[in-house]
Amino acid sequence: MDNQRTEISTLGEFGLIDHLTKNNETRNASTVLSIGDDAAVIDHFGKQTVISSDMLVEGIHFDLMYTPMKHLGYKSVMVNISDVYAMNATPTQITLNVAFSNRFSLEALDEFYEGVYAACERYNVDLIGGDTTSSQKGFVISVTAFGEVSPDKFVKRSTANKGDLLCVSGFLGGAFLGLTILEREKRIFAETGSQPDLEDQAYIVGRLLKPEARKDIIEFFAEQNIVPTAMIDVSDGLSSETLHICKQSNLGCIIHEEKIPVNEEARQFAYKLELDPTACALSGGEDYELLFTIAQADYEAIKGNDQISVIGYMTDPAEGTQILTRGGNRHALVAQGWNHME
Amino acid sequence: MDNQRTEISTLGEFGLIDHLTKNNETRNASTVLSIGDDAAVIDHFGKQTVISSDMLVEGIHFDLMYTPMKHLGYKSVMVNISDVYAMNATPTQITLNVAFSNRFSLEALDEFYEGVYAACERYNVDLIGGDTTSSQKGFVISVTAFGEVSPDKFVKRSTANKGDLLCVSGFLGGAFLGLTILEREKRIFAETGSQPDLEDQAYIVGRLLKPEARKDIIEFFAEQNIVPTAMIDVSDGLSSETLHICKQSNLGCIIHEEKIPVNEEARQFAYKLELDPTACALSGGEDYELLFTIAQADYEAIKGNDQISVIGYMTDPAEGTQILTRGGNRHALVAQGWNHME
Repeated sequence: MDNQRTEISTLGEFGLIDHLTKNNETRNASTVLSIGDDAAVIDHFGKQTVISSDMLVEGIHFDLMYTPMKHLGYKSVMVNISDVYAMNATPTQITLNVAFSNRFSLEALDEFYEGVYAACERYNVDLIGGDTTSSQKGFVISVTAFGEVSPDKFVKRSTANKGDLLCVSGFLGGAFLGLTILEREKRIFAETGSQPDLEDQAYIVGRLLKPEARKDIIEFFAEQNIVPTAMIDVSDGLSSETLHICKQSNLGCIIHEEKIPVNEEARQFAYKLELDPTACALSGGEDYELLFTIAQADYEAIKGNDQISVIGYMTDPAEGTQILTRGGNRHALVAQGWNHME
Repeated sequence: MDNQRTEISTLGEFGLIDHLTKNNETRNASTVLSIGDDAAVIDHFGKQTVISSDMLVEGIHFDLMYTPMKHLGYKSVMVNISDVYAMNATPTQITLNVAFSNRFSLEALDEFYEGVYAACERYNVDLIGGDTTSSQKGFVISVTAFGEVSPDKFVKRSTANKGDLLCVSGFLGGAFLGLTILEREKRIFAETGSQPDLEDQAYIVGRLLKPEARKDIIEFFAEQNIVPTAMIDVSDGLSSETLHICKQSNLGCIIHEEKIPVNEEARQFAYKLELDPTACALSGGEDYELLFTIAQADYEAIKGNDQISVIGYMTDPAEGTQILTRGGNRHALVAQGWNHME
């Protein structure tokens, strides 16, 4: 990966920050003061500021054996921006803290920041500050993202109503399948030295390594004048996220298995691995799609959007959170999200 | 430290977040939505939002051998709040991300959060979100702090003027001396097993382990209707911070050695260790005092405040950044801040 290796220590801390931020552009009028002082200043007069923060740790959340640094940078930003969209807000700024051991060269760090800047450009956000420091081991990333939303337009998890339609964007389960194949190829490589050919798996591998946040869905809501009644992004799997909305809204729900959107390539690949595509969608994670509820009256406005699937509806809490299978059976949903704590 | 040891894994990720945030209070009207959704929402209508973010890594920024978890939690918040004050802003919210290995028990984490909440109470800020996750090794903390300031009242590093007075709050060099004694006692303990008696060193050890941000100075500025022309907090040592203001304001300066405020206990202790107290102030770090410039016309307003020392003045850039020693010699200031990158 590195033809040239420059030790980061040759730059010093401030030299490193200058190097990493020299091409940093400001895209939002609300960015009053950016990198280079004790703090940044933002101005969202008349709008509310939405804030989300996440930490990504090497060996826990990503494996650099199959994650290119550029993709890692991109995804680190995207993950937080996805949370901002999940509030029905528009992302505007991020701060980024990174810690890394001396195993990492300046070239590797540059690749990471290339991905960060690519995501900033794609999602029109400004990198306004942060910290670069040493770690004892591995690469640790902490991103805080800011967005803006008109007062009372932000969408919580706790405000779904009985009878609302439960909807999801895009396809589910692909990222989990991508992870499964990469982990399998890593084991094969470790045991046999045989290099994987992942060309046929471009879709699912891409879902894991280069996911995109659903900017288009938020823009569609604005165009159609729809405000979802509740929303969450799908980072831990459909089951876990549905249970969050149900619990926080004090409701039950029914999901129809046949309505859960799984991409055809992903479905075929799941069968090849003898996995149930529905289980991948329910318990896999990192799809970064949006799960939301809308009033039934809004159905007409969304039905023409082929990126949105209605997968069920909200019920009395007494009815529980259930999935109605293709075979006509009902099962309780169980939270089996990716639990990094265990 | 831990009489009881509860494995964090027994709670699961969401159980852990509930446990850690169950007593979390909201203190600011601008906190519209706090922990428990994809993102928090803040509202600073009519004021600008100031944002600062820092990362603290075990083994790099702190040593748990002599840093109590509660003090660590307190200091993690305080460090960022200090940056917000350095913008002449009032801190209002923080987000907190922590990663930790399975070496840490729930009791240890609870102590850390006790410190976090104590700092939130002391500085009247709301903890509005964040992430708790695993690390491969050690304890890693990332805090982002938010504050509010009236438009055009925020103070940058780059706006000092020629002839302005260079001032600093409190005393300098104490935290560095505290670190020096703790590192020495750690070596002695490793070599001989002899427990340190740090009672005589309460002042300098306290400066390192439980520093406070200068809320009082910012409040004093507001009362006196003073807006400093430039400001920075002293985290890397007086030299390094002075050079930041000079470079970013395109000015030089002269500091009078005899005016640099060093606490008497710290001074005596420096002599005992055969260290130069001035060098400790210039190159030590982590004092979290405020270094600022004011117009000469504001001298009358600050001269009665015994927490503020005028240590020099700003000059033409051609005159360089110099220190005038007690002996009447001039030396160029050199940046020898704590460089965690090397």
